[in-house]
Amino acid sequence: MRYFIGVDMGATQVKLGLLDSNCRIVKRKRLDTAAFTGKDSLIGAIAQSIILLASGIKYKIKGIGVGAPGLVNPEKGLIHYLVNIPGWENVHLKRILESRVGLPVFIDNDVNVMALAELYHGRAKGKRNVVCLALGTGVGGGLILEGRLYRGAAFSAGELGHIPLNEEGPSCNCGGRACLERYVGNRYIIEQALDKLKKAPLPTRIPELVKNDLSKINPQILSIAASRGDLLAKEIWQTVGRHIGVCLTGVVNLLNPELVVIGGGVAEAGEILFDTIRKTVNERAMSVPAQSVKIVPAKLKENAGLIGAAVLAREEIKRSG
Amino acid sequence: MRYFIGVDMGATQVKLGLLDSNCRIVKRKRLDTAAFTGKDSLIGAIAQSIILLASGIKYKIKGIGVGAPGLVNPEKGLIHYLVNIPGWENVHLKRILESRVGLPVFIDNDVNVMALAELYHGRAKGKRNVVCLALGTGVGGGLILEGRLYRGAAFSAGELGHIPLNEEGPSCNCGGRACLERYVGNRYIIEQALDKLKKAPLPTRIPELVKNDLSKINPQILSIAASRGDLLAKEIWQTVGRHIGVCLTGVVNLLNPELVVIGGGVAEAGEILFDTIRKTVNERAMSVPAQSVKIVPAKLKENAGLIGAAVLAREEIKRSG
Repeated sequence: MRYFIGVDMGATQVKLGLLDSNCRIVKRKRLDTAAFTGKDSLIGAIAQSIILLASGIKYKIKGIGVGAPGLVNPEKGLIHYLVNIPGWENVHLKRILESRVGLPVFIDNDVNVMALAELYHGRAKGKRNVVCLALGTGVGGGLILEGRLYRGAAFSAGELGHIPLNEEGPSCNCGGRACLERYVGNRYIIEQALDKLKKAPLPTRIPELVKNDLSKINPQILSIAASRGDLLAKEIWQTVGRHIGVCLTGVVNLLNPELVVIGGGVAEAGEILFDTIRKTVNERAMSVPAQSVKIVPAKLKENAGLIGAAVLAREEIKRSG
Repeated sequence: MRYFIGVDMGATQVKLGLLDSNCRIVKRKRLDTAAFTGKDSLIGAIAQSIILLASGIKYKIKGIGVGAPGLVNPEKGLIHYLVNIPGWENVHLKRILESRVGLPVFIDNDVNVMALAELYHGRAKGKRNVVCLALGTGVGGGLILEGRLYRGAAFSAGELGHIPLNEEGPSCNCGGRACLERYVGNRYIIEQALDKLKKAPLPTRIPELVKNDLSKINPQILSIAASRGDLLAKEIWQTVGRHIGVCLTGVVNLLNPELVVIGGGVAEAGEILFDTIRKTVNERAMSVPAQSVKIVPAKLKENAGLIGAAVLAREEIKRSG
């Protein structure tokens, strides 16, 4: 059996795993980014963890894949910058890790890596044209076109979260305005919830769920409330679903994918969210692309990043060799 | 020298041409669709014209390419339907023409074919990731991704004209709402012009240009007026440019193309239109994709359809061996 190591870099944690060639996770490690003083010490700890995961079976390990939350040049293995992790400007992570651990390293954007995980081991298995949408603090995306990850001219493709929903609208962190993320990123969902609670036009038990500490409201709480039939929570998810549905209408008309896979914490809201998204796309997209697309939740949840990183290494090695 | 025949089907005319392997047009023919009683007689005339174009050199002609304004299955050579040409439902045009003229026939959507023309003989030469936008009565698009025409799961990809610009807005012919076409399709540009003329907040000589017959206003007139410095006409093109710019912001963030090629009659408005489009994309798109994209007018004008159809045939034959 051949093995791969996956590294899933996040703003608060770096998850590492030893995976077999079917991308089953055999061993895990976890690093809290807050425990390290800076980029160099974190890279040192990542290298150290890889060496530990590989100990005894290094000769069976064919490569290391890394998913990083930011702009990555996968050809050079260069991280241009990371979102929410300061100090990572133009880091040649591939070169650094390869020299420390003596194994080939492959790096890509975290959402691209999740798209690869869904393509090879999740809902997108065997599909050729797939749009992946990742909902969370940020809203990201990955595109599988003609059976392969589509990266674009400067490797920044897939930014579904920064498609404008309206010509005018609120400013977004990206420098644009009225972007999808500005409506359905976690903090904006919470803002909407607080706003609706203030006006309280609908009966709700959300305050009860957070013991009247409204600062504890998050998408998980809103999902729980909706699943219990809370009308206000349901209305919030319907609003979120309509925003996502309008954005996907444009994407579906443009790319005519066979599948849209939606993952990330917000996707846990389940059927009320997905029903609204599907209804909006069916109402607004052109009939041919609307009929040819399925919109489904991601299969791989918290392990998508690790699995995708291992898939990245496995498939890049297969392609080059 | 090898030759190809290109067929450019439009709502009012079918243009046909004999092209050499560098896609230079050697001979032409033209059919007025209104002169034919229906689909079958038009197909008969197309076949007849092909036979005339081929006469004497049929043995040098390697194939026939057809660009058709509607939904086409290029694998089967089947026209599902044509926009603005009634009666063309599920026509196996490839099969019919091949049996009548005895040469291989390849069919694709007209805007896809124009994208191929720009890729091989126009502004997109040598580029890998290109978005083509065709402005006219309808607003269409074609995508070149990783150096090849991207058609999507049901061959309907590229519908830039039906990306929503706003969550709410006017109904569109496609069944959706607030689509780009609904703002920048020819008739909507004219509507805006008439509306602005009624209010006349800006000095204008547009009525003079059409000898006070406002029903004669069209995008060409508005382009002429703008090029002469007419303030009202300039304002119209700036509004059109902003709409297109917002739409392209989403497309550029999503696909990170290196080039956007804009063709069709409306694109003749020139720098005032392109400056506004570029300014809007630079202001609103993310910095990496905004910096990596050039937005340019198409090189091939009225011959793009013929050239693209010949390219389609040439490249499909090359690919199949």
